[in-house]
Amino acid sequence: MPAAVPTVNQEQVVDPWDVKGAVVDGIQQDIDYNKLIEQFGTKHITPELLERFESLTQRKLHPLLRRGMFFSHRELDQILDRYEQGKPFYLYTGRGPSTGSMHLGHMVPFIVTQWLQEVFDVPLVIQLTDDEKFLFKPDLKLEDCHKFAFENARDIIACGFKLEKTFIFSDVDYVGGAFYRNVLQISRAITYNQSKATFGFTDTDNIGKSHFVAVQAAPAMCTSFPQIYSAKDNVPCLIPCAIDQDPYFRLTRDVSTRLKRAKPSLLLSKFFPALQGPNSKMSSSVDSSAIFMSDTPKQVKNKINKYAFSGGQATIEEHRKVGGRCKVDVSYQYLTFFEESDEKLEKIAAEYESGQMLTGELKSICIETLQNMVNAFQERKKTVTDDLVRQFMDPNRKIDPSVAPRGSTT
Amino acid sequence: MPAAVPTVNQEQVVDPWDVKGAVVDGIQQDIDYNKLIEQFGTKHITPELLERFESLTQRKLHPLLRRGMFFSHRELDQILDRYEQGKPFYLYTGRGPSTGSMHLGHMVPFIVTQWLQEVFDVPLVIQLTDDEKFLFKPDLKLEDCHKFAFENARDIIACGFKLEKTFIFSDVDYVGGAFYRNVLQISRAITYNQSKATFGFTDTDNIGKSHFVAVQAAPAMCTSFPQIYSAKDNVPCLIPCAIDQDPYFRLTRDVSTRLKRAKPSLLLSKFFPALQGPNSKMSSSVDSSAIFMSDTPKQVKNKINKYAFSGGQATIEEHRKVGGRCKVDVSYQYLTFFEESDEKLEKIAAEYESGQMLTGELKSICIETLQNMVNAFQERKKTVTDDLVRQFMDPNRKIDPSVAPRGSTT
Repeated sequence: MPAAVPTVNQEQVVDPWDVKGAVVDGIQQDIDYNKLIEQFGTKHITPELLERFESLTQRKLHPLLRRGMFFSHRELDQILDRYEQGKPFYLYTGRGPSTGSMHLGHMVPFIVTQWLQEVFDVPLVIQLTDDEKFLFKPDLKLEDCHKFAFENARDIIACGFKLEKTFIFSDVDYVGGAFYRNVLQISRAITYNQSKATFGFTDTDNIGKSHFVAVQAAPAMCTSFPQIYSAKDNVPCLIPCAIDQDPYFRLTRDVSTRLKRAKPSLLLSKFFPALQGPNSKMSSSVDSSAIFMSDTPKQVKNKINKYAFSGGQATIEEHRKVGGRCKVDVSYQYLTFFEESDEKLEKIAAEYESGQMLTGELKSICIETLQNMVNAFQERKKTVTDDLVRQFMDPNRKIDPSVAPRGSTT
Repeated sequence: MPAAVPTVNQEQVVDPWDVKGAVVDGIQQDIDYNKLIEQFGTKHITPELLERFESLTQRKLHPLLRRGMFFSHRELDQILDRYEQGKPFYLYTGRGPSTGSMHLGHMVPFIVTQWLQEVFDVPLVIQLTDDEKFLFKPDLKLEDCHKFAFENARDIIACGFKLEKTFIFSDVDYVGGAFYRNVLQISRAITYNQSKATFGFTDTDNIGKSHFVAVQAAPAMCTSFPQIYSAKDNVPCLIPCAIDQDPYFRLTRDVSTRLKRAKPSLLLSKFFPALQGPNSKMSSSVDSSAIFMSDTPKQVKNKINKYAFSGGQATIEEHRKVGGRCKVDVSYQYLTFFEESDEKLEKIAAEYESGQMLTGELKSICIETLQNMVNAFQERKKTVTDDLVRQFMDPNRKIDPSVAPRGSTT
C-alpha cells in the first residue's frame, strides 16, 4: 500500500502583511524558507559568501549572520565587490510604525544594520512608512501613524546608530522634493498589473496601496537624499530586511534597471519566531506572542516561562532519557540570536539535547539574556533626547557619502 | 417609409485627455454640451443664477459668464450663499503644463478666475500638474514638465492675479507636508475600481495614473495650504475649469463628503473651439488649431485668415443673399469670448447674418480683437520678472484667508 499523500489544507502565506506556515493534514507547519527562496527567486547565503564577508571586513560575523537568521540575499556579492574596491554604497532599511511599541523581532534588522554600519562606516537611511500604515490599516488615524513613527525613531536610535552617518525619516514628513521626483519616476514605470500581481491587490483596494510601492522603492535611489548624494550620483544600497519585504524590492530592482539606476542589493532574514513557535512571527498585535522592548524584567520572565514553546519532554524522567529538541525550542532559538559566544551556545545545546539541562534551566538562561538585552536597550533609550531625535530626522543635515577604507574600522 | 435611423459611427468622447464630438452618418458633430451635463450630472447655469450673481456682487457679469462659455456648475449657489453671508471661501484652478506655450483656450479659465478674484477678493491657489503630465505622457521628461510649469506660471501671472492673494505651485515642488497628508487621506478613500471607472484606466496603465486623482483633489481641501488656512479650518473652494475636468472633481466631492471636509463647488466651461470649428478643442499639439499667446500680430492674422472656420457662404453673391451663420463661425465665436461690448457684438451678428458683412470683414474684426488682446498680454508678461514668479510660487508666504465684505470691491 503506498503512503498516503499529505493533504495541504492551507498553503504557506508570506507577503508584507501576512506570515503563516502551511497547514498539512490539519497540522500547522513551520515556515518553509527553502520554498520561499525558490518562490521569490532569491539566493542562499553560502558559507563561501560569509567567508568572503569575514575576510574582506576583517571582522567576526555577527551572530545573526553566522547562525543563519539572515539566510538569503540578492547580489550581496556586488556590495562586497564595491567594498573591496572602495566604491561608495549605502544602507537602507525601514519600519512600518503601526504601533508605538517595538518588540524583539522588530529589532533584528536594526541590530544587523547597526553592525553593518559599524563595519562599513557608510551612510544609512531609515524609512518610517507611516503613510503605508495609514493606507493599509483602515482603523488608524494619520496623526497616530505619524506619532508612532517618532516613538519608533526613539527605539531605533537606541540601537546605537552613528548620528553623523544616519538619516531617519517619516514618509509623511519627507515625501516631497527630490524624493517625490523619484516616486514619480518609479510610479510611471510600474503598471497596476505588476503591483497587483506582486502584492495581490484587488480592484476594491484603495489607490494608495498599489501606488505605495513607489514610495518604498524611492529610498533605493540615492538621489532621494540630496543631503547625502548629488543629482548626478548613482550609488547602490544594501537593504537588510525580513524576507516578506522582498516583493517590494523585487519590483524596485526591476524598475531600477529600466530607469538606468543602480539596483539595490538585499540581505534577507527569516522571521523572528513568536513565543508560541516558528510557524508564525512575533506580532505586536498579539501581546502573548512578543517580548516588547519596554517590558520589565518580570514581564520578560513571565512571558518566557508561560508562553515560550518548549522542545523539552513531557516529564523530567523522559527528558533525562530522550533530551530536549533545540530545533523547535523557542528559548534556544532566541539564544541563537542574542548569545554572542559560540562556545556557550554549543554547550547549552549539548546539555539540553542530552537531557542534562531541563527546560526550566534553559528558560532561565534565555530570560537572563533577554533581560540583560532589554535592560541595556532601555538604558540607551534614556539617553535618546527629543533633540537627538530631531537631529537624526533633520532632512537638511549634510551627511558624508564616503565609504571607509577596507578593514579600517576593525 | 420611416426616416432612416442615423448611424452613430463614433460616440462623443470627453475626458481629461480627449475631447471629440460624435461622428454620425460619417459626419463629425459638434460637442453636445447638454448631453455632457446629463452624462456628468452637473447643472445648467440658469439666467436666475446669473442674476443672483450679478445682484449679489453688484458687478456686470464677465462676457465669458453672460454669454454662456461657462455654462454648467455644481453648487455654485452655495458659494454665493457664503459670499452673501460673508463666510470665507477660496478659488482653485490649475493647468497641466505639457508645453511651454499657452494658447487662447488655456487662457479662458484664468481670465474668468482673475475676474472672480477681483470680484470676490478671496485667496486663489493655482496647481500646475507637472507630475500628471509626466505620468500621462511617456515621452516627456520630468525636468521638462517642471520647466513648462514655470514657463506657464509666467503666462498665468500675466493674466493679472493679485500677488497678495494668490499662490501658484508646481506639484513636483509642492507635494509634501500638509499637502501630502491630504493626498494620503484622499487616496485611502478611493478604490482602484472608482478611479478606473471614472477615468477609464486599464490594468496596464501605470500606478501613478490611478493615484493622481488624489493629487488633483488635494488643493480642494483648504488644509493643503497651511500658509493660508489653519489645520482646523474647513473652508470650501470654487473651482473654475473646463468641463473635461469634472470627473476629477466629482470624485473629489464624493471623497470630501466621506472625509467630512467641505465639498468644492464647480464652475464649468465649454471647450475653446479650435480654429477648425467647435467639434474639437484648441490644442497646443496642433499648431494650425491654435492662436498662441506668443504669436506675432502677423501670425494671428494669417492663422485666422487661413484656418478659422467660416460660417459664410461659398460665393459673395450667395452670402449677400443668404447671410453668414454666426453659430458655426469661429471668428464670431472668438469675438463672443473677448469682445466686451454687447452692442458691438450684436451689431456684428446682425450684419453678418443678414449678409451685409462678409467673412473677410468679420475675420478682420476678429484679428484686430485678438491682436490687441495678445499684444496687451505680451506687454503685461514683460513685467513678470523671475523674482515676481518666485514670489507667487513661494510656499512660505502667508496669505490672508479673509473674504471682502459683499459689494466692497465694485
